[in-house]
Amino acid sequence: MLTYDLKSSDLSLYDALYRAIREDILSGRIKAGEKLPSKRALAEHLRISKSTVENAYAQLVAEGYVLSRCRSGYYAERMECRQKRETVVFPPPREKKARTDLSLGAPPSRLFPFSIWTRLMRGVMADGGETLLRPTDSAGVYELRSAIARYLYRMRGLRVLPEQIVVGAGTEYLYQLILQLLGQDRIYATEEPGHKKFRLVAEASGARCTPILMDGEGLCTELLEKSGAGAVHLSPTHHFPTGTATSPARRRELLKWAQAGDRYLIEDDYDSEFRFSGRPIPPLFSTDTAGRVIYLNTFSKTMAPSFRIGYMVLPPALLEVYQSRLGFYASTVPAFEQYTLARFLDEGYFEKHLARMKKHYKTERSRLVSLLSDAPFAKRLRLSGTDAGLHFSVSLTTERTDEEIRRIFEAEGYRVCLLSDYYKDPSRAERHVLILSDAGLPPETLYQALLSASVRL
Amino acid sequence: MLTYDLKSSDLSLYDALYRAIREDILSGRIKAGEKLPSKRALAEHLRISKSTVENAYAQLVAEGYVLSRCRSGYYAERMECRQKRETVVFPPPREKKARTDLSLGAPPSRLFPFSIWTRLMRGVMADGGETLLRPTDSAGVYELRSAIARYLYRMRGLRVLPEQIVVGAGTEYLYQLILQLLGQDRIYATEEPGHKKFRLVAEASGARCTPILMDGEGLCTELLEKSGAGAVHLSPTHHFPTGTATSPARRRELLKWAQAGDRYLIEDDYDSEFRFSGRPIPPLFSTDTAGRVIYLNTFSKTMAPSFRIGYMVLPPALLEVYQSRLGFYASTVPAFEQYTLARFLDEGYFEKHLARMKKHYKTERSRLVSLLSDAPFAKRLRLSGTDAGLHFSVSLTTERTDEEIRRIFEAEGYRVCLLSDYYKDPSRAERHVLILSDAGLPPETLYQALLSASVRL
Repeated sequence: MLTYDLKSSDLSLYDALYRAIREDILSGRIKAGEKLPSKRALAEHLRISKSTVENAYAQLVAEGYVLSRCRSGYYAERMECRQKRETVVFPPPREKKARTDLSLGAPPSRLFPFSIWTRLMRGVMADGGETLLRPTDSAGVYELRSAIARYLYRMRGLRVLPEQIVVGAGTEYLYQLILQLLGQDRIYATEEPGHKKFRLVAEASGARCTPILMDGEGLCTELLEKSGAGAVHLSPTHHFPTGTATSPARRRELLKWAQAGDRYLIEDDYDSEFRFSGRPIPPLFSTDTAGRVIYLNTFSKTMAPSFRIGYMVLPPALLEVYQSRLGFYASTVPAFEQYTLARFLDEGYFEKHLARMKKHYKTERSRLVSLLSDAPFAKRLRLSGTDAGLHFSVSLTTERTDEEIRRIFEAEGYRVCLLSDYYKDPSRAERHVLILSDAGLPPETLYQALLSASVRL
Repeated sequence: MLTYDLKSSDLSLYDALYRAIREDILSGRIKAGEKLPSKRALAEHLRISKSTVENAYAQLVAEGYVLSRCRSGYYAERMECRQKRETVVFPPPREKKARTDLSLGAPPSRLFPFSIWTRLMRGVMADGGETLLRPTDSAGVYELRSAIARYLYRMRGLRVLPEQIVVGAGTEYLYQLILQLLGQDRIYATEEPGHKKFRLVAEASGARCTPILMDGEGLCTELLEKSGAGAVHLSPTHHFPTGTATSPARRRELLKWAQAGDRYLIEDDYDSEFRFSGRPIPPLFSTDTAGRVIYLNTFSKTMAPSFRIGYMVLPPALLEVYQSRLGFYASTVPAFEQYTLARFLDEGYFEKHLARMKKHYKTERSRLVSLLSDAPFAKRLRLSGTDAGLHFSVSLTTERTDEEIRRIFEAEGYRVCLLSDYYKDPSRAERHVLILSDAGLPPETLYQALLSASVRL
């Protein structure tokens, strides 16, 4: 007779019995065609009421696990999909980051304006009420889009209307929207070397990508011209990982290229906030007179990585396409976060936060640069890209291969990225170039890492 | 001489001058090759210091707008992309929802557990600290995924591990991930009639879709078999908009179909929380022994539309694919929201909220049903699907076409959807069937709408 411990679970007796029998039928412990005990017999056996068994049997019949034959009794049905339940084997967890990562920059959390943010959140909760529950516009809350438009004018000299701005849950999500907006019939060019994310998203979405080499002035427009690409993802203000700012001549060539057909420049203005010398470089978007540039930026790099808010600015012609083809999408950012960020921007806190971060990064960067110039191994290092952004590069004088360099650092407890990691075709990369980030790491840590590795390099 | 009102802006004099000249060069007001005033002359003219002009000119030269000729002066460069700046014409704003929407259900905001949610948020802010700023796992915060796994066991009888759960910014985002996971080489079948969103997302992503007709038992598996589809999106527990619960036999056929090849069932369990009579129907996922079902649900329908949190449960084999191919994606939901929701679930508030909502909806629904049965126009209506979910259908006895019916309601100030709206090929639809939602609308509003329209129907 079927025997189950029905009382050990939190479920009602009827539910526990129903589940137990279902599980036995699915797993094959009760065979197809096998007769189940009579309701009375099972009730007595399990010391439960007959109506409990009746309810469980009725549910099993209703769901097709059990067949009720008139005046004969209950029989297990043949389960077409009866098989041994697939053993749940989970992929091994991804490498735990026990090593100190010298290449992954993140704003130091102690500089996050926690108390201001918390106060604004409380204010939004208190004032927002029902507004916070209503669905927002597909492109985001209007208040936030206006606040971003004003910020872009103050900080980046961009004159855009809130209607042009689309807010989304991070840059990668916006990449997906851009790929849907521009379609899969065009080839997407990406910077070589460059940030991997756009290419990864494009490839995961089934789009074709082609890498275009960079030179000292920026992306090689001649190669771009020959590539047959219909759009290019680039970061002209401060290229990752080389730090190159695209030259004025090259910028004009890029715009000319885009205007010569149905082509788009996808301008990722990532990191433009942190230039430590000179005047900010204006984005390509600001000199585009033909509506061929899509501008993108994110708050993840300036606020915190757990902050899932980015935005893009669309040229007017694409706005219409967005509304008609993608306007059905619900906004991916909670209304609550959008209103809080709108206040944070409009009340000037974001610019204060940026100024504070910039000062902090600049001080730490110059401490690091002087530590490294006075180091015993200084002759074997060449730093570049230290005047802006959260990354810089260190060219090493060594006979070691890039893989050997990586392993030497790993043995000392550090994780590093090399320039060749940012190439689709690593054979094209200059060797022995570390890409390091000091955001969130004290100069002494980087110094110590280079010191201990240098012995074996 | 160039004349600008530099003091009316918030910018520094140098920045304002630089921008003004740049704008004039780009717009063609200063022609290519035109000589700019000497620094001294312009400074005197504008009553600003010579060094301000020097700085502005230097920036213009650095960015390639102006050419400095030795001992001759400054000349406007030829801008390759100089054109009249495209006039920003915005698409007309989408129809303002001045009409009362009788088909768009949303939880009534006065039932949202605002004070509990606010308290939990404050707690998370106070306790979370740095944890809230760190990037979360691609699939979401582990605490939330465990809380969802426990909830699914309690409420839907699903035994899943937190590792199988992927949290994302709403169902549509999860659809995008599923499309990337299963690839574009397969055809995606969708329910006809059915929710439009999956098809819209699939088509925007460049995937091929094919509609499969429903009958009274669910999706027609015979048609599915013939369609050549490699995946199907469906809602077997409570179909939208017809309310059909897929029959036990049809469920077995669907699982059999999926197991016969590299095929997947994408089970959208939307609305399963609100059954007003009988026992909850278990999801297909719970009887799938071969790992061919992806289970999806969202909190937007049960909490608030501005809530951008949904989740999917992957079968073990797809988990590995997810991690290797899509694991690079950052989570799209702010850590802050994820931790708050985890507490909301674990402390039992979500189930209390659901019970309260269900009671409310059930009471309102039966009030509405009795109002309509006693109505003067009752003979001309046939209600169905009123025993579950936030939608039901009303079949009208009328000679009017669906478009005429829609316009009659519009003239009275109401927006309605008809069954034919949910067909890819509307000619296949039964006519004169309204799909209405009473979630968030008092029964009297729906009664009044039907009453005033009935005169002309």
